[in-house]
Amino acid sequence: MPGSVGTVRTEYATFPAPLTLESGAVLAPVTIAYETYGRLNREKSNAILVCHALTGDAHAAGFHEGETRPGWWDGVVGPGKAFDTDRYYVICSNVIGGCKGSTGPASANPATGRPYALTFPVITIRDMVRAQKRLIEHLGINCLAAVAGGSMGGMQALQWAVAYPEAVRKVIAIATTARSTAQQIAFNEVGRQAITTDPAWAGGDYPADSPPVQGLRLARMIGHITYLSDGAMREKFGRNLQDRESVGYGFATEFQVESYLHHQGDTFTRRFDPNSYLYITRALDYFDLAVDDSLAAGFSGVKASFLVVSVSSDWLYPPYQSEEIVNALAANGVDVQYCEIRSNYGHDAFLLENGQLNYLISAFLDHLLVRDVMETGAPTIVERASINDAARIMIENAVNHLPVLAERGDLVGIVTSWDIAKAVACGYGSLDEIMSRSVVTASPDESVTEAARRMEERSISALPVVDADRRVIGLISSDAISTLIGRCA
Amino acid sequence: MPGSVGTVRTEYATFPAPLTLESGAVLAPVTIAYETYGRLNREKSNAILVCHALTGDAHAAGFHEGETRPGWWDGVVGPGKAFDTDRYYVICSNVIGGCKGSTGPASANPATGRPYALTFPVITIRDMVRAQKRLIEHLGINCLAAVAGGSMGGMQALQWAVAYPEAVRKVIAIATTARSTAQQIAFNEVGRQAITTDPAWAGGDYPADSPPVQGLRLARMIGHITYLSDGAMREKFGRNLQDRESVGYGFATEFQVESYLHHQGDTFTRRFDPNSYLYITRALDYFDLAVDDSLAAGFSGVKASFLVVSVSSDWLYPPYQSEEIVNALAANGVDVQYCEIRSNYGHDAFLLENGQLNYLISAFLDHLLVRDVMETGAPTIVERASINDAARIMIENAVNHLPVLAERGDLVGIVTSWDIAKAVACGYGSLDEIMSRSVVTASPDESVTEAARRMEERSISALPVVDADRRVIGLISSDAISTLIGRCA
Repeated sequence: MPGSVGTVRTEYATFPAPLTLESGAVLAPVTIAYETYGRLNREKSNAILVCHALTGDAHAAGFHEGETRPGWWDGVVGPGKAFDTDRYYVICSNVIGGCKGSTGPASANPATGRPYALTFPVITIRDMVRAQKRLIEHLGINCLAAVAGGSMGGMQALQWAVAYPEAVRKVIAIATTARSTAQQIAFNEVGRQAITTDPAWAGGDYPADSPPVQGLRLARMIGHITYLSDGAMREKFGRNLQDRESVGYGFATEFQVESYLHHQGDTFTRRFDPNSYLYITRALDYFDLAVDDSLAAGFSGVKASFLVVSVSSDWLYPPYQSEEIVNALAANGVDVQYCEIRSNYGHDAFLLENGQLNYLISAFLDHLLVRDVMETGAPTIVERASINDAARIMIENAVNHLPVLAERGDLVGIVTSWDIAKAVACGYGSLDEIMSRSVVTASPDESVTEAARRMEERSISALPVVDADRRVIGLISSDAISTLIGRCA
Repeated sequence: MPGSVGTVRTEYATFPAPLTLESGAVLAPVTIAYETYGRLNREKSNAILVCHALTGDAHAAGFHEGETRPGWWDGVVGPGKAFDTDRYYVICSNVIGGCKGSTGPASANPATGRPYALTFPVITIRDMVRAQKRLIEHLGINCLAAVAGGSMGGMQALQWAVAYPEAVRKVIAIATTARSTAQQIAFNEVGRQAITTDPAWAGGDYPADSPPVQGLRLARMIGHITYLSDGAMREKFGRNLQDRESVGYGFATEFQVESYLHHQGDTFTRRFDPNSYLYITRALDYFDLAVDDSLAAGFSGVKASFLVVSVSSDWLYPPYQSEEIVNALAANGVDVQYCEIRSNYGHDAFLLENGQLNYLISAFLDHLLVRDVMETGAPTIVERASINDAARIMIENAVNHLPVLAERGDLVGIVTSWDIAKAVACGYGSLDEIMSRSVVTASPDESVTEAARRMEERSISALPVVDADRRVIGLISSDAISTLIGRCA
């Protein structure tokens, strides 16, 4: 039963040594806000770094004291979840350039004592990762078991593998790209223009208590449209009106989708710094792992194994961009798994499709066990039952496979609907004549990946799960696995 | 040879009688700016109304005195083009609510003598069409041969068929929808918010010489992203830098796509009224031809025949929205043709894909003749030639069909590469033994639609085009037609 990491709090590490940035500029000191969940093992080999997206923060899981809303990736981080805090030591840190505790444009410039504002140096995804590397070393970790993230978090994960090939064993990159496209830059630029043309922006030197809220609100509204799919918006809002029966022929808020955007824009201005929005979107624009226009060349030094996940309805980071990553990795002989998850949510699916993500990530981290996904309470039949009994149980329970048990409860065979048909066709009268005695089974403690592979090899769609005494304790079916993972390539 | 309508000018018609709007408000007087091309015939049966999109105007074709840039749909309006001004009397008018000569929020309110600004009543697509109806009647026309348009122009075309079923014989609706979706409303709303949160907007009462340019510029930049496909932006801009060799780690314009957006935004503010942008986008939001949530019910009274065209890469008005129109029309037994044109341009394809549009529209208006698309100079062979000669001519000219002519030049048969193969296989020695004597031909003056139907019925891929004396003057092939039209459903 997956649970919560409970109450957590953000910690801070400050590094006085100057950090040389990709631009050549130098930043010092560098403070990094971070949270950790679970325990670092003695070998320091079970650390997983989780990286946040554009407007995220270090609070990935659990609850801050007195709050009811959990961290942004609570659906996959916690005991029994994909990033299983019973096994792993999960770390999440706020990016530099951000406004959630790590050094950014709203931080005090030590040279002046006033906020950096636009004197803050432009940072890149590589710089964010370089700063994270300091934190990881500070925590005593030489090599991460995995780095994972969606959207900009996925870029950081890819960047880790390229920048520190010896320091990361597995990479999980979700709904992301290896190089920002013209369309992505275009949306970022419109957001920045909204902020910088707001008179309240004042060249970046706005007082902390009167930021350019209108500009930031607009930028967030644009962003939100790109995070949702057309289909999700149709489903969620359609043409529904907000608190009214009929259209009012005016410019007040009338459609639910307008109300939603206003709300998203308004709440965002209360939690995000406009200058940070400029710096982080610029880092996105600059992101390009290609070398001489070749992504394959860009990935030539990586050593990690990869899980790349795209979302069918994501039009901001469409699946073809994940496929470009996969192809570039494959060209280098890198171990890479790819899955396009089926979701109507659009880009935001990386925050919402917990079922599919938990399965894919757990399987990739190789700790998802048959016992975690098996169906229990599947019907069985005793050896001496009639064929009619077997048929009736199948129909009543809508199953195709019926494990056959001996009197003392251990598995002796399996009978399928196809066997029933055979009995009818050939006039067989007893279960004994039609059931298969050589049954392929699964163990509750083996990995799902292993069981799935066995099913595929033998062309079997379900396996009885048996304990050490060959008692049937459940059933694992390819249908159940498929439902969890969607259509995977 | 398609040509230009030459120098044209915008005319104005003012109607003093009050126009009652969908909201119940009344507008008077109503001025409509319009242009016409070609001549109205005596029966007044050859008039086609062309409707413009969000930011268009009455200037669809030809050139204004002293200008070098033609009207917005010059690619398909003119002598020999789809909207053939040698045959049709083409009318284009500026929508009410606009700012290009028709009455809109920048017009003087007769009650005050000052611009209407926000006291202008909210208008709908139905209101725009109602105003156009006045213009059409003013021009002495009872029934339009066709109404056509792309994007918002397509909405007007659909609205015409619904509002005035007796007054329109054909409808051409391109890259459009029958009801605005949540995503479309969302993009419109962000554009409006950009304008109304610009302090210069001043509640709509800005002086004519200092409009809220920053807000309108932002709205246009957002719009432009939605008009292009991701693929078109990749192709056009990629990650190319503007006037620099390497990135500068700053917020100045660095990428070409940024420069493009700034330019589009800036030029737009010099030609469009911000309040008009509010009114017209609101009309888009309200557009919904469904009755009781049923589009089929909404189209129940239409009498026109329809051509519906979508664009494969259009994500603002995706093909499924055109398919919804087609299904709703088909449910009413309406004659409807549908084509998804293959284009990488995105939504803007309705202004750019002149080749495909000219063919589709011409064929639908049933005036595209075989002589317009036949290939001339196709090789032939004389009756007494050898099979070797025939094979050689086919190979040299890369053709599969060779019309066989008598000594005096008239068509006596046809020989194909398959016939040659047959001759080799069976040891035939003369053309006479292998050619088909019953040749299906086309006439230069029949419609392409007719010839295409005959080819399809007989499973023939090319027809010789013969004159009254059965002399071969060209060849019409399904390949040539396919190339023109792309993949059509």
